[in-house]
Amino acid sequence: MAGSMNELAAAYKRLMEKVKEMLIFQSAASIIYWDMQTKMPPRAITLRSQQLALMEKIGHKMVTDPEIGALLEKILDHPDFDSLDEVQRRNVHLAKKEYDERTKLPEELVVETARQRAVSIDTWKKAKAARDYARFRPDLEKMFELRRRAAEILMDVKGTATPYDALIDIFEPGMTADAISRIFGELRSGLVEIVEKCVSAPRQPDVSILRRRVPVEDQRRVSEALAAFIGYDVKSKEAGGRIDETEHPFTTGYYDDVRITTHYHEDRFASSIFSVLHEGGHALYDQNLPREWMYQPVGTACSYGFHESQSRFVENIVGRSREFWSHFLPELKGLTGGVLSDLTLDGFVHAINKVEPSKIRIEADEVTYGLHIIIRFEIERDLFAGKVTVPELPQVWNEKYREYLGVEVEHDSEGVMQDTHWAGGSFGYFPSYALGNIYGGQLLAAMERDLPGWRSRIAAGSFAEVKRWLVDHVHRYGNLYDPADLIKRVTGEGITIEPFLRYLDEKYSALYGY
Amino acid sequence: MAGSMNELAAAYKRLMEKVKEMLIFQSAASIIYWDMQTKMPPRAITLRSQQLALMEKIGHKMVTDPEIGALLEKILDHPDFDSLDEVQRRNVHLAKKEYDERTKLPEELVVETARQRAVSIDTWKKAKAARDYARFRPDLEKMFELRRRAAEILMDVKGTATPYDALIDIFEPGMTADAISRIFGELRSGLVEIVEKCVSAPRQPDVSILRRRVPVEDQRRVSEALAAFIGYDVKSKEAGGRIDETEHPFTTGYYDDVRITTHYHEDRFASSIFSVLHEGGHALYDQNLPREWMYQPVGTACSYGFHESQSRFVENIVGRSREFWSHFLPELKGLTGGVLSDLTLDGFVHAINKVEPSKIRIEADEVTYGLHIIIRFEIERDLFAGKVTVPELPQVWNEKYREYLGVEVEHDSEGVMQDTHWAGGSFGYFPSYALGNIYGGQLLAAMERDLPGWRSRIAAGSFAEVKRWLVDHVHRYGNLYDPADLIKRVTGEGITIEPFLRYLDEKYSALYGY
Repeated sequence: MAGSMNELAAAYKRLMEKVKEMLIFQSAASIIYWDMQTKMPPRAITLRSQQLALMEKIGHKMVTDPEIGALLEKILDHPDFDSLDEVQRRNVHLAKKEYDERTKLPEELVVETARQRAVSIDTWKKAKAARDYARFRPDLEKMFELRRRAAEILMDVKGTATPYDALIDIFEPGMTADAISRIFGELRSGLVEIVEKCVSAPRQPDVSILRRRVPVEDQRRVSEALAAFIGYDVKSKEAGGRIDETEHPFTTGYYDDVRITTHYHEDRFASSIFSVLHEGGHALYDQNLPREWMYQPVGTACSYGFHESQSRFVENIVGRSREFWSHFLPELKGLTGGVLSDLTLDGFVHAINKVEPSKIRIEADEVTYGLHIIIRFEIERDLFAGKVTVPELPQVWNEKYREYLGVEVEHDSEGVMQDTHWAGGSFGYFPSYALGNIYGGQLLAAMERDLPGWRSRIAAGSFAEVKRWLVDHVHRYGNLYDPADLIKRVTGEGITIEPFLRYLDEKYSALYGY
Repeated sequence: MAGSMNELAAAYKRLMEKVKEMLIFQSAASIIYWDMQTKMPPRAITLRSQQLALMEKIGHKMVTDPEIGALLEKILDHPDFDSLDEVQRRNVHLAKKEYDERTKLPEELVVETARQRAVSIDTWKKAKAARDYARFRPDLEKMFELRRRAAEILMDVKGTATPYDALIDIFEPGMTADAISRIFGELRSGLVEIVEKCVSAPRQPDVSILRRRVPVEDQRRVSEALAAFIGYDVKSKEAGGRIDETEHPFTTGYYDDVRITTHYHEDRFASSIFSVLHEGGHALYDQNLPREWMYQPVGTACSYGFHESQSRFVENIVGRSREFWSHFLPELKGLTGGVLSDLTLDGFVHAINKVEPSKIRIEADEVTYGLHIIIRFEIERDLFAGKVTVPELPQVWNEKYREYLGVEVEHDSEGVMQDTHWAGGSFGYFPSYALGNIYGGQLLAAMERDLPGWRSRIAAGSFAEVKRWLVDHVHRYGNLYDPADLIKRVTGEGITIEPFLRYLDEKYSALYGY
């Protein structure tokens, strides 16, 4: 019996060694991806696409190593399997899930997708600058076709109802397009109601103050101050983060090296403020995963939706609150050399929370944002269902913007080409953003029970208590639970839009006086 | 017969595919190394050492793949081997050499060396800042021991006379410690003679002008202007390079992505000028290797000595010439906001060519520089011969500096810890610097026969002709020849110190009026 137990322990230990190598390799590959987006000389694009394709190929070989399959079989079939603890069993489950999914994807498809990703993103950048969808379309079609092929294979492996569900499951394990359709259906009417109350309210903010020119150099200092506020260290000798500049902000990294990016617009200084808070929220999650789980499957985030809940919590619930600005507005004024010295707290907080249907997702307010996501979700769903084709995307996009948001898209760079996701092949990702808002609302309700005085702590300049709560209730669980289980564990109930809509309604009725 | 030829062609083609993957992988790994030196958050050092060790392990597996051994055997034993052209035969030779060397090194040693490299460099940085050799010594000893083990294995593979010769051969194929001892012996007396004439000459430069404070921001603009002058593009939409900041400047990259680094000292503005020109010379070599040889062994540089000949050519022969400064001094004055406006051409050129025995290699002048290298070479040689031990290094170092250069080293950060090379395990590298000077002298003599008017072109602001000559006579040959053959092909004779000493004597007698 002891020998038998030792065999199980040895197989588990070996499996974790293999996983550790994979995670280290992925973290190395992420540096090369980060470099492509931030520092790479432009001439290197072809070489870089070859480097990334090779890294993908090597990573694929590591993940699909038959030794892993043999170890998993040995562990799962072992009579003493139940002697493993909860964390060990979860590690085995997550390793098995990834192994099954990845072994079914042909290496040729994986390599070609990585290669096409680099090319499509490059073409997207150029086509967007030229406002020329026709230039982007062939590379988007190739990317869609590659992801469609992968989705059909993954559907069989995961046993999902549709190919698109198999892609959604990558980002939000267990979630389906049908469930999202239902949730988003309710969300849409709730959001539209609040939007209507806001836009028809007599009290409207003066947003012209957000157009004051703030030199990029000053904005960089503001970014560093915001990072310091949330405890995302980018300056000290112990720093585990950094802030760089890209077209589309993102966060990447692993535990001790988690980097965010932002984009500075001289005449829209608030844009970088909120992208830094947003990406900073992501970074805190990645940095505060349990250290004892580093290099294990369980030492990763729960889902993209939960990741978005963290970024949106920091960006919106904290970062667009009156309490945060009662502390930070004087600092902002000090860092921007007098340009903003006459702003009032009320005026500024209302301005950064102006609700207004618009065309650009990443500049959208907290209320209309969900509508941008619902549009993207519906288009993806219909694309994979064959109800829409890639050439039709601009038309479908523009019609939905007219219907859901009442805005007229004038060219495709402010329409269907505004985001990088589809160029990168990340179909199934978009719903995560809105799920993040929904989870965020539920987390806020739970936090308010534990920390009723959180708003006064923020107003006093301390984010530490809120951060501690997020670490203790979300980050510390890593990937121990699927998202449906995690939200239940933390809040006591399944996914529900009520707390998010209630939070919005309370906040915006106070701002707009409706 | 045709079938047989096809078999050879197929094996060769497959070998080149394998090499292509290796070169792409190495170029990817170099990005991660570059990031460690330039951008990495400090907390990431442990993770990074694991990433680099894993990359090294994977690279080692690729290079030592038994399929490569089988392909090489098939090609070399093939009756039609002679039907391969010169380039193909060289590719096979270089692939065979690397395969033989690498298959003999145990994976465990390779992985441990990569891991220790990251740790030793980190310790070196801290120990250097603290002027504490005792802190550095254990990690240096570990690194020396790892390299000694590798050298003993490589000695057998390469058939060199000593372990140290096997390390020298990595950087300068075919060169030996005995040959270098002979060459450096002659070089030392030639250099000492010129040094003595310079220091005893009545006409001495005023170097206080080099201490004027030039803000780092201005120096960054000067770097960009210097890059533009030599045609190293770091700004345009076609750029294939970039300039960043590190403790110790270096160049890294491959064809379309070749990056240099520099270090700015506000009160020594000339330091970054010459490091940018130096690294820029390296970068031009890597960028101008023949494009049709990209991804082949022959599409790499000839040797580290030849690489140094290119960096020193741009830094010293061009960059410290009166002609270059007759063009660039006005631009330098314009970029530095009046701080240097009163400098005269003669005064400035003499100041940047002041000959003076000193303690710091990277700040040494062109004449005494070789003496710094000779000291390092002799110490390495004696270390590997067991005549000196790691704990004795500071004492031996300081004694040699007293004897060869007549200077007193006051602490180890300006002594034995000033360079990163030994921390990184690059024993056998240092001789390349002086060999580069020697090759550079020979190349200059050859270039003057082809381009007698090169100095007036530089004075007229054009580097294009000199660059063209270097591309046509050095870069275009990639790694087609061993260094001894290349210098003969380009200059008509083997390695000889005469042209370098003649160049120095002519230049410095004019400057110092001796």
